[in-house]
Amino acid sequence: MSFERSLRNKVAVIGGDHIPFGELYDKSYKDMISEAYKNCLNSVDKGIDPKEIDACWFGTNGLSPQYMQPTGAIIGETLGLIGMPITRVENACATGSDTFRNACIAVAAGLYDVALVVGCEKMLDQPGGLIGMERPGPRLFHMFAVTMPSAFGVYGTRHMHVFGTERKHFAMVSVKSHFYGKMNPYSHFRSEITVEQALNAPIISWPLGLYDCCPVTDGAAACIVCREEIAKKYTDSPAYVLGSGLAVQPPTLNLRRDFTTMEPAVWASRQAYKMAGIGPEDVDFAELHDCFSCTELIQYEDLGFCKKGEAKTFVENQEMYIGGKTPCNISGGLKSHGHPIGATGVAQIVELFWQLRNEAPSDPPGKRQVPNAEIGLQQNIGGAGPQVSCINILSNKKR
Amino acid sequence: MSFERSLRNKVAVIGGDHIPFGELYDKSYKDMISEAYKNCLNSVDKGIDPKEIDACWFGTNGLSPQYMQPTGAIIGETLGLIGMPITRVENACATGSDTFRNACIAVAAGLYDVALVVGCEKMLDQPGGLIGMERPGPRLFHMFAVTMPSAFGVYGTRHMHVFGTERKHFAMVSVKSHFYGKMNPYSHFRSEITVEQALNAPIISWPLGLYDCCPVTDGAAACIVCREEIAKKYTDSPAYVLGSGLAVQPPTLNLRRDFTTMEPAVWASRQAYKMAGIGPEDVDFAELHDCFSCTELIQYEDLGFCKKGEAKTFVENQEMYIGGKTPCNISGGLKSHGHPIGATGVAQIVELFWQLRNEAPSDPPGKRQVPNAEIGLQQNIGGAGPQVSCINILSNKKR
Repeated sequence: MSFERSLRNKVAVIGGDHIPFGELYDKSYKDMISEAYKNCLNSVDKGIDPKEIDACWFGTNGLSPQYMQPTGAIIGETLGLIGMPITRVENACATGSDTFRNACIAVAAGLYDVALVVGCEKMLDQPGGLIGMERPGPRLFHMFAVTMPSAFGVYGTRHMHVFGTERKHFAMVSVKSHFYGKMNPYSHFRSEITVEQALNAPIISWPLGLYDCCPVTDGAAACIVCREEIAKKYTDSPAYVLGSGLAVQPPTLNLRRDFTTMEPAVWASRQAYKMAGIGPEDVDFAELHDCFSCTELIQYEDLGFCKKGEAKTFVENQEMYIGGKTPCNISGGLKSHGHPIGATGVAQIVELFWQLRNEAPSDPPGKRQVPNAEIGLQQNIGGAGPQVSCINILSNKKR
Repeated sequence: MSFERSLRNKVAVIGGDHIPFGELYDKSYKDMISEAYKNCLNSVDKGIDPKEIDACWFGTNGLSPQYMQPTGAIIGETLGLIGMPITRVENACATGSDTFRNACIAVAAGLYDVALVVGCEKMLDQPGGLIGMERPGPRLFHMFAVTMPSAFGVYGTRHMHVFGTERKHFAMVSVKSHFYGKMNPYSHFRSEITVEQALNAPIISWPLGLYDCCPVTDGAAACIVCREEIAKKYTDSPAYVLGSGLAVQPPTLNLRRDFTTMEPAVWASRQAYKMAGIGPEDVDFAELHDCFSCTELIQYEDLGFCKKGEAKTFVENQEMYIGGKTPCNISGGLKSHGHPIGATGVAQIVELFWQLRNEAPSDPPGKRQVPNAEIGLQQNIGGAGPQVSCINILSNKKR
């Protein structure tokens, strides 16, 4: 019996959209997923009847804010998808990517024709601010001064020490993200910053200043995947899943071998490239997990867009801009576009879908579109310090 | 291209075990998953090298007790599975079943040869008792007198009103569960009860008394699934997945149409039977979600083991005992065996695996074995009031 260990060319994205990210105190959890779902349905070129959706995977990091229930039930109730198989996936900040991955696996398995992927996070309307931050675990963390910026900052300092990277290189990553994020109507922050502003901003946890850190954002995103054989029923311009990878490492920092690399990202990218049958040089653009500027900079190396230790040159040469070697976070990234955890990865998929269809929303028009993009990669990292990475690669052509 | 919307005969269970359930204050979360995993590895007849495991799905309802991290990371760290793809699934009390389902889907998709399924819950060692019960949602619930017993009790009262079911019938279900649970070395409660004891016990929420309610239990369970083509490499007696179903309904009780049936169970069973190509009459034994005695009784009808309204006769005739029409919860069920949420469904899979291999652990020996069992069904229900049900059907033969 033939056995192919791959999702490649088996699954197509036929629609996707998300709501503008931001501090959405005026929207409830249900408002957010309803709006993302409605936008998503409307994005399917030739239309889709909700009855054609066979199953749903729902990604959220915090529990739903209303009740201690099967978290997927909020999807069924809000969207009127009664009786549907709905599975909730959680993988910290990689929740959105892994939710997409699980839906694609089920479609590739032949179990469902069409599956809905929804990601949502209401981060701000919770006691303690960030969902879950009032819980015992993080309090213990904070006692030992382990916050998210400190857990990722140690990677920044080590990279500086070993490779001579400077704080200005981190700043240049954020400047790029704000440059594009300003033009994205869906962004949380729509303003540019300068390297000087970033370098002079208050330090949050050395070497990371205020403008090196992504904001706390509310948001929801949705996309629809189907078996590739029926994709053209829904659109003439689907995006095909080429590859996918997921890798987890232990949470404890003392077990890490090297603080200049985020190993789960290296491992997950190897899986995804192998499945896709491509290398990093084939990636036309990427949406990376820039929870912090140093995270994105290190990912340039970990994902193979440049050689180890050469990210600073990659940045100085603006290779992560449109026109450069590998445009990265043209959405604005987590830094400017925002990071509503469960929604982040799904929104990255939507950005890939848009870019691959040459329809990236932009103000002014066209300035945010990667020209002739054929292969896009999206990546999430999760945990306080990288513990998990999930990567999906899409293309507008089967390969 | 041929397209089969099914998992049938594609996935095999090749090993499984769990730790004895109970009030495990003396074991940490990591102790529990380590022990279940080790037992599970040892249960593979011809042995397995952990390096042969390609991926893991991990089911837990509460977040891991230690930190706000990718919950799957605790698995990777504790079991030494560094770099592995690990996805955490949550679906309230149906978490274990749905975790198994997602692992099977990935194996059926051809993505992995061998996948590990782990379920764990530490229920007692948390502030507020049950994990999560200290959170805002449930507090709100409690304000309106909605507890788990009250949310399921309304189904009991309605069934009594419409069909003349009596409290003694619920009691007889619990008596049966304790009768078998006493003989199961893995049970939380290893004692028999009488109908009189159950009827005279304090009322928790009408019509449910103390002995109609499952306990709050700690536990962990693990099993290993693989592509059916390679199952015989690991054991001469695998169990094959025949069918699987998952269905969600809205959480709000006011949207329910009928309180004599738990609709997600009806819907999920239809999916699972259809996929398996069998009917309820073909099920040789079942592990049902008896969070409350009335839940199990209503499931006899919902899953088609008897006709609507006839569960009381089914119970009076002891059709749910070994030797009856459909032996149910021969493990002792949630009532006697215990209900550590994320572990419950996985442990039910392990019970099916044991029964189908004619090796159900029993004290005295042999008394808990369903003779000549060829097809077993396991079922979970989740939510305060049934909001989700997940069902998997296994057999010791391909069909």
